[in-house]
Amino acid sequence: MEAKDCKKKIILTGDRPTGKLHLGHYVGSLQRRVELQNSGKFDEINILVADDQALTDNWDNPKKIRDNIIEVALDYLSIGIDPDKSNICIQSGIPALHALTFYYMNLVTTQRLSRNPTVKTEMKLRGFNGGDDADNEAGLPAGFFTYPVSQAADITAFKATTVPVGEDQSPMIEQTREIVRRFNATYKKDILVEPEILLPENEVQRRLPGLDGQAKMSKSLGNCIFLCDDKKTVEQKIKSMYTDPQHLNVADPGHVEGNMVFTYLDAFCREDQFAEYLPEYQNLDEMKEHYRKGGLGDMKCKKFLMKVMDELLAPIRESRAKWEANIGDVYDILKAGTDHAVKTTNATLNEVRGAMRIDYFDDRSIVGDWEEWLKSDERMQSPTVRR
Amino acid sequence: MEAKDCKKKIILTGDRPTGKLHLGHYVGSLQRRVELQNSGKFDEINILVADDQALTDNWDNPKKIRDNIIEVALDYLSIGIDPDKSNICIQSGIPALHALTFYYMNLVTTQRLSRNPTVKTEMKLRGFNGGDDADNEAGLPAGFFTYPVSQAADITAFKATTVPVGEDQSPMIEQTREIVRRFNATYKKDILVEPEILLPENEVQRRLPGLDGQAKMSKSLGNCIFLCDDKKTVEQKIKSMYTDPQHLNVADPGHVEGNMVFTYLDAFCREDQFAEYLPEYQNLDEMKEHYRKGGLGDMKCKKFLMKVMDELLAPIRESRAKWEANIGDVYDILKAGTDHAVKTTNATLNEVRGAMRIDYFDDRSIVGDWEEWLKSDERMQSPTVRR
Repeated sequence: MEAKDCKKKIILTGDRPTGKLHLGHYVGSLQRRVELQNSGKFDEINILVADDQALTDNWDNPKKIRDNIIEVALDYLSIGIDPDKSNICIQSGIPALHALTFYYMNLVTTQRLSRNPTVKTEMKLRGFNGGDDADNEAGLPAGFFTYPVSQAADITAFKATTVPVGEDQSPMIEQTREIVRRFNATYKKDILVEPEILLPENEVQRRLPGLDGQAKMSKSLGNCIFLCDDKKTVEQKIKSMYTDPQHLNVADPGHVEGNMVFTYLDAFCREDQFAEYLPEYQNLDEMKEHYRKGGLGDMKCKKFLMKVMDELLAPIRESRAKWEANIGDVYDILKAGTDHAVKTTNATLNEVRGAMRIDYFDDRSIVGDWEEWLKSDERMQSPTVRR
Repeated sequence: MEAKDCKKKIILTGDRPTGKLHLGHYVGSLQRRVELQNSGKFDEINILVADDQALTDNWDNPKKIRDNIIEVALDYLSIGIDPDKSNICIQSGIPALHALTFYYMNLVTTQRLSRNPTVKTEMKLRGFNGGDDADNEAGLPAGFFTYPVSQAADITAFKATTVPVGEDQSPMIEQTREIVRRFNATYKKDILVEPEILLPENEVQRRLPGLDGQAKMSKSLGNCIFLCDDKKTVEQKIKSMYTDPQHLNVADPGHVEGNMVFTYLDAFCREDQFAEYLPEYQNLDEMKEHYRKGGLGDMKCKKFLMKVMDELLAPIRESRAKWEANIGDVYDILKAGTDHAVKTTNATLNEVRGAMRIDYFDDRSIVGDWEEWLKSDERMQSPTVRR
């Protein structure tokens, strides 16, 4: 049983339900999840809708999290996450995660948490003050400060071997690995599994810039295309895309580097789409060449991108519409996925409690242990220090 | 129902199971618990064996906590805690406490926790370094740093109105009250109850010095009489008690202030015990008078104290022996108490989850809410900021 478990390849991944998912999520993680799901290489794929984690910096707005659970779930299902192959579950519905977080907190120092670069960056982003002397309302919520411990609970509860995330998340995985090693060493049981990070394969996966070319695609910057945007909205957004500000007339030579239309074509267009939509070019290289020389207008490029995007988004939109008409089914999928996760994670928690020997009420064997303790020389001779 | 609940008077109290209980615990809290239990003034009395809290600074020695659960339980039962009137329960067996701790962490800043004077004192005691730059093994465990949040979870989970503790614990109760106010205000429900502190009534309750007169009675200083000490051990400990170092000969005048024999007589002897054991004095004042003048030997005083202590401890010892012979019964009491606590605290957790609206799977009403959300103007017009 244990030997078999050791060989299991288990993925844990997920998202904070704080907004609809966009193309950045699609190329950065969603597309790959579908590939991994369909690769047949993994025994289990768990996708966690991390509402509890989202609450660590949205505690005053739980409605936002509640509303966005359905957005994220619809996005998952419409891009091809198959609930028969991937287990979609809701973090707050999985009690073992709270218990594991509680016990792992003993194995991490506040100093270690303060040094976590991911947390430092995220703190700055949110205006949380981490200093000791901060006496203001923007102090650092303890829940946010300790969320790497909660992430370690998520990962280890599923005994995940593989966590597909971006490079920026690697300190979180390292923190989890440290907790695993410390737990197994402290409680002298080889129970928890050290997860491996699965990094993005290419530049596009690492970072899709926003429509404005300024930064990562980000909802707060209003520079993204959502998976659920309708065709007209996508077309409007593509029209507004940042290209080459020096490329004023069609005849002018243009730059493709830093030109979002070409960046997106790099990410999304396939060679066969030229024959269908833009037969004057064999491929993207030829098109770029023409743009560089001059004589290719932005609008023509954008229209091609519209076709390319629509080919990607139309089926997703269609699938989403079907699921939107059956929210009850989505609810059932989330409920079943969460129920399943409760079983998986309770099994881990039981092992953890057993290793810590705090499983007093699982059987009556402690009665005998207590009887022995009360008669033991250890009890009589060396009173342990009360601290 | 709610109006009735508001009027309920509920006690939460307890101990960390890190050692056998001693006379300091007896006068400081145990004796009073029995009085409160038998006063008929409280609707519920919950006594929490705080093993999870004990693990925050004994994570590497869970056996110690495991062994001492039975010690503490035996001490409770033998001094007159009646499981029919007081609910004795084990913290780690109560899952709602982990969940509440998790959610309350969002409502407390790390700055606020750093300023808690009780935690500061306890940190010093344990050699935990709270500084940001500490890179050593004695760093501050996150579980220890945040244990006031866990205590708030304990108190509020039982909806305790009354927490009998020493003055030194008052910052902990204040922290709990802050969390209660913040929770109720944030989630716009009047669910959690602000507990009141019930302080000791007199100096003896506040602090019984150790046998050496140097400090509080404390196991680590080896200066205490345990409730389970046998008669001979108690007599030996009384013989070794610190009296008046200037009182060399019986005829010398002696000091009663700072003389532990008289401090203990102050705390424990009753006037009627003079007639029985030391009829040459009517009361303690006469005895002290004689000691001050000179002519009363330490051993005579100590022999009287032995009688007084034995009158207190013999029935406790006898009762303890009976329970020790029936550890299975003690186990059943703890199990039943914990089961009961699970019900009580799960009810609170359900209310908390309801107030936070994260009770997605309690009924299917969220399906309708989601359908509404997806059609709402709010969704279309003002995308919330993803953070």
